[in-house]
Amino acid sequence: MVLLDGKKLSEHILAGLKTEVAAMKKKIRLGVVVIGTDPVIEKFVAQKKKAAEEIGIDVRIYRFDEKVTTNELRKRIAELVHEPHNTGVIIQLPLPGHINKQYILNAIPPEKDVDVLSGRAIGSFIVGKSTVMPPVAGAIKTLLEEYKITYQNKHIAILGAGNLVGRPVALWLLQEGVTFSVITEETGHPEQLLQKADIVVSGIGKPHFVTGDMLKDGVIAIDAGTSESSGKLVGDIDPVSVAKQASHLTPVPGGVGPVTVAMLLKNLVTLAARKK
Amino acid sequence: MVLLDGKKLSEHILAGLKTEVAAMKKKIRLGVVVIGTDPVIEKFVAQKKKAAEEIGIDVRIYRFDEKVTTNELRKRIAELVHEPHNTGVIIQLPLPGHINKQYILNAIPPEKDVDVLSGRAIGSFIVGKSTVMPPVAGAIKTLLEEYKITYQNKHIAILGAGNLVGRPVALWLLQEGVTFSVITEETGHPEQLLQKADIVVSGIGKPHFVTGDMLKDGVIAIDAGTSESSGKLVGDIDPVSVAKQASHLTPVPGGVGPVTVAMLLKNLVTLAARKK
Repeated sequence: MVLLDGKKLSEHILAGLKTEVAAMKKKIRLGVVVIGTDPVIEKFVAQKKKAAEEIGIDVRIYRFDEKVTTNELRKRIAELVHEPHNTGVIIQLPLPGHINKQYILNAIPPEKDVDVLSGRAIGSFIVGKSTVMPPVAGAIKTLLEEYKITYQNKHIAILGAGNLVGRPVALWLLQEGVTFSVITEETGHPEQLLQKADIVVSGIGKPHFVTGDMLKDGVIAIDAGTSESSGKLVGDIDPVSVAKQASHLTPVPGGVGPVTVAMLLKNLVTLAARKK
Repeated sequence: MVLLDGKKLSEHILAGLKTEVAAMKKKIRLGVVVIGTDPVIEKFVAQKKKAAEEIGIDVRIYRFDEKVTTNELRKRIAELVHEPHNTGVIIQLPLPGHINKQYILNAIPPEKDVDVLSGRAIGSFIVGKSTVMPPVAGAIKTLLEEYKITYQNKHIAILGAGNLVGRPVALWLLQEGVTFSVITEETGHPEQLLQKADIVVSGIGKPHFVTGDMLKDGVIAIDAGTSESSGKLVGDIDPVSVAKQASHLTPVPGGVGPVTVAMLLKNLVTLAARKK
């Protein structure tokens, strides 16, 4: 089983971006909206901040109390997205349950939406009008290309239909005209479709949910799900259990995650370059 | 095998819309952009016009020479969508090959986009912000509901990923969190996934491409593909061949087609009601 080294790939992408950023002679800043003080969220924010600053991109963090209302938050975001110093803005997810998530995400105009999560950015992406793609989809595409795995003629199964993994990956494959299946958690027997897939992308956030017996021999297993288990980052796919079936696996940590951060910053640089 | 009677269902929907339109005391007009003089296109336009006029909706047809350029067409559409008398506007597809289709479709603002084909309307739909849904998806949903077929816990296979059938149906199912597969024409053995599906939706426009041996017993076969064969409208699914496997089938003509026209007009009435 080959492990796809996302850490190494992300370092390569970031090195390229660093050169680009230096050549642009333009201040680039990422605005990050953080609600509450969850330690897992803080860890993700810290990773993005570190990667950005290493390549010469400023990060400004906007913190809100977890009791903030949807309306207050939307109002503040509408202001900060128009702040000229913010080249791009992201809302760190997940948001507290009382917040209308999509309404908040829609406050980011497409030209600053590096996560491609607003309705307008998604719409542009679907019709092929966007210059950026959802970071997780970009990460998976780049990982597959790096390891010379052609996916266009394969059957790809996506486990989960959430807006951070399942949905953007499905939209990407739909746009590319690739054959794929979306398997939601409501599906009684997910293994029946998973076993038909040449490539499996998982994004449900259930620790080691996917085991070897659910997959076909030679499968390429892409783990885009992360959860915390006793303070450690754990993926959806059980690496020990799938070692016999999978020809390739993205580890957690060090697989899809770091490449997704690199693609987020790549989007930011792309949007910065287009800015007048 | 039960035939799903789309003609009867469409008449029922149209009767309801007629009452609604009469009660609204508002002039509703559908602008239809037609390029060239293809007899098949003319037939579809005539069907929409007839259905609209029967329920008290005006239709204004805007004709363009098939040699019109993308830029000329976009400019004219940008004007006519702002014409206050046009409550909604559709571009009759397919367009001549030299036209940049999506650029033309994007000229329709979401509040007049009854076909839900512009990037902005699609984006709104995907994030659950839209009051209307792509007509073909609405038609299939309504047909299934009319015949009390629950689809939420089924595996639905979509044959084709085109922007008139496959894409909107996939977006609808993604948004509803239903398990589905998109099988494109590039797939070597479409039957391998088709045979796993409880419901099959076909939209490739290849006369009688789908035969009984590709489907599993008891399948619900939804034929949303239409092509012309010796002057007759022919579907993707061979009705004789699938008679043994399918528990339900939508005939062509008289299945998905008329309900799609009714859903298009339903969208128009919904958008008209929201108009200030």
